[in-house]
Amino acid sequence: MAVIKLHGSPLSTATQRALTCIYEKEVEFHFVPVNMGAGEHKSENYLSLNPFGQVPAFEEGDFKLFESRAITQYVAHEYTDKGTQLLLPGSNKSKAVLEMWKEVEAHQFDPASSKLAWELAFKPFLGMATDTGVVEENEAKLAKVLDVYETRLTQSKYLACDYFTLADLHHLPNIHYLLGTPAKKLFDSRPHASAWVADITARPAWSKVLAMLKQ
Amino acid sequence: MAVIKLHGSPLSTATQRALTCIYEKEVEFHFVPVNMGAGEHKSENYLSLNPFGQVPAFEEGDFKLFESRAITQYVAHEYTDKGTQLLLPGSNKSKAVLEMWKEVEAHQFDPASSKLAWELAFKPFLGMATDTGVVEENEAKLAKVLDVYETRLTQSKYLACDYFTLADLHHLPNIHYLLGTPAKKLFDSRPHASAWVADITARPAWSKVLAMLKQ
Repeated sequence: MAVIKLHGSPLSTATQRALTCIYEKEVEFHFVPVNMGAGEHKSENYLSLNPFGQVPAFEEGDFKLFESRAITQYVAHEYTDKGTQLLLPGSNKSKAVLEMWKEVEAHQFDPASSKLAWELAFKPFLGMATDTGVVEENEAKLAKVLDVYETRLTQSKYLACDYFTLADLHHLPNIHYLLGTPAKKLFDSRPHASAWVADITARPAWSKVLAMLKQ
Repeated sequence: MAVIKLHGSPLSTATQRALTCIYEKEVEFHFVPVNMGAGEHKSENYLSLNPFGQVPAFEEGDFKLFESRAITQYVAHEYTDKGTQLLLPGSNKSKAVLEMWKEVEAHQFDPASSKLAWELAFKPFLGMATDTGVVEENEAKLAKVLDVYETRLTQSKYLACDYFTLADLHHLPNIHYLLGTPAKKLFDSRPHASAWVADITARPAWSKVLAMLKQ
């Protein structure tokens, strides 16, 4: 079996998403750091792996893939017998429920949480001023999303079903950054969402990603 | 078999995406118009179908689904033997390639093209002023995305492979709105992207969606 290579930066939420999945599946891989500060993600060599010049990029022998959520989907299917079961096997209907919650992360949770992480975590880190208008707007949007999650999480332990799937996993990187900011209150004020956050951030696979962040 | 109901508005790109898929699969369905001008999408009844108060929402008997791309995925899998084959069957690797191009649509094409459609098509229609700064920024972003498509479309006739799949279908609504604006030049100036646009916009299923728009 070809060795998996994941190219990326441990600071990037998309890289973290792919890394978490690979750790959950307990497959061997080689991490190739991409020095974004030095512009390596825009080099000709890297663009042959990801034509959008973004991290991460995935290689398994001759097979190449980019887009973090396509990478997690592939790894979860290809290594279905290894590590954590991250899919919802069964009928097309149960698979569709997982797909729906993955789409909710991508189109409802991610836009608001990414903007908040940028304003409240990355900008202060980079010495840039936070735009309070953008924060207010996106806190209001994220609050509405989390209201839906709060209701959903009274019906099932995780978003798609009663066990942890890709739909939950995809949330981890942005949640992690927001927990270190005042936006943490949006999770804390919702008991089911808060318990879900505590549960998924405690996973050993996620701790391994955090350990890479600290290196 | 339970009758499919699709709730939505023919003006909405997300509704159009789901409609196109259902027409391609040639499955019978009942379209339920949601009067967004009257706020029907925020009514208690509608929120039980889509808790985010957005269109479309899908019903098949007791089974309910929202998020347009989750609906197309379900319909393509559930009705695999009907109408157009919109998936890429085969190995996990070939499926992953389709997933990757679906992710590209969702995370690269859609953000820039949706902002341009809003500024160049919807705002003038609503009598609102176009923000030229937003237009310039997003035309530059979309140009970079279409450069990648141009290269990809020299390698295969459609984005994921040599036949039309969900990855192509998901682009139709935003492409349609942009073709009626000055952003059309971004497609026209790229021969392979332009041929692809001509091909996918000529599909009978898309014509049926356009006919609903004109009603």
